[in-house]
Amino acid sequence: MSNPDEPTKNNHEVSPAPPTATDVENPTQGVESGVSAITSRWRREDLLKRGSLVARGLALLFSFLSFTIMASNKHGDEEDGEDFNKYQEYRYLLAIAILSFLYTGGQVGRHVIWTGKQIFERRVCAMVDFLGDQVMAYLLISSASAAIPVTNQMREGLDNIFTDSSAAAISMSFLAFLSLALSAMVSGHKLSTQSYI
Amino acid sequence: MSNPDEPTKNNHEVSPAPPTATDVENPTQGVESGVSAITSRWRREDLLKRGSLVARGLALLFSFLSFTIMASNKHGDEEDGEDFNKYQEYRYLLAIAILSFLYTGGQVGRHVIWTGKQIFERRVCAMVDFLGDQVMAYLLISSASAAIPVTNQMREGLDNIFTDSSAAAISMSFLAFLSLALSAMVSGHKLSTQSYI
Repeated sequence: MSNPDEPTKNNHEVSPAPPTATDVENPTQGVESGVSAITSRWRREDLLKRGSLVARGLALLFSFLSFTIMASNKHGDEEDGEDFNKYQEYRYLLAIAILSFLYTGGQVGRHVIWTGKQIFERRVCAMVDFLGDQVMAYLLISSASAAIPVTNQMREGLDNIFTDSSAAAISMSFLAFLSLALSAMVSGHKLSTQSYI
Repeated sequence: MSNPDEPTKNNHEVSPAPPTATDVENPTQGVESGVSAITSRWRREDLLKRGSLVARGLALLFSFLSFTIMASNKHGDEEDGEDFNKYQEYRYLLAIAILSFLYTGGQVGRHVIWTGKQIFERRVCAMVDFLGDQVMAYLLISSASAAIPVTNQMREGLDNIFTDSSAAAISMSFLAFLSLALSAMVSGHKLSTQSYI
């Protein structure tokens, strides 16, 4: 009788164990899924923040290149030489590139260096970010578009270092526009989802 | 004994009444505040939907005006006359105005006429809306900016019906850009908050 008794005892000892194990496992799983949801949200927000910083950093670089190339675009002597200052389209491009450089520089500086208390409300900051990015993107595409026809016309006649520099500056402004358009999308997303955080 | 008995009976009959009234009122208030929150949300969403439709309708009108004004901008005979077709900037403006007219026409038609089942997922529709608005806005500001310098240069020399028509077409394209930029902001907001609805 010891043989049938032992398996029964064993069964009795083993059978309560699985429910206990699942009972312990289930809450852990619930907590884990909750934690993973929160961490995935944090990761997404962190990714957005980093993406926005990278986009603005690229816009800073490209607008710096654009304005230095255009500002140094003077060749030959004063009379015969070609000077960007003679063309209002190039002056417009230069002005917008400088504005974009200052704006993106300020934004990158604010996000990298400034870690203290926020002076303004968070919602106001998000709105300023979005509007700033969007308006700068519109200005950059506008200045690049305005400068393209005159450069194109000049290059039909002759192709020298002046027209090449102009084309390079225009390309840099266009790349800065692409970066800021991306950044504007990210800050628009931040602005819209912000009240739910 | 009938007098003291009657007030007691009255008291007994009256006293349970006020608590019942407040008991009934409190849930009603709770339900009302919940209902008002939901209706205010509906009202906001309805306002956004209507605002988006109005902005797109304005963009449709302005791009129609822009492309008809530019397409009819031929004056004088073939040899001496001024024709928008000679200038690539004006051809670009015309092309973008037609594109914008078709796009906004399609969007307005879809929102006004189409009431059946949505073919695509709602999220996909919202993304197409946002990207379409944003890209069209960039194209419109780009075409207006490209056409401004050549018109400006022509108007320095002489100011006739050709340059005036060009200026009018450019203004209409710029107004269409403003409308679509507004619409892009609304559809970006819709896209971002959509997963929470």
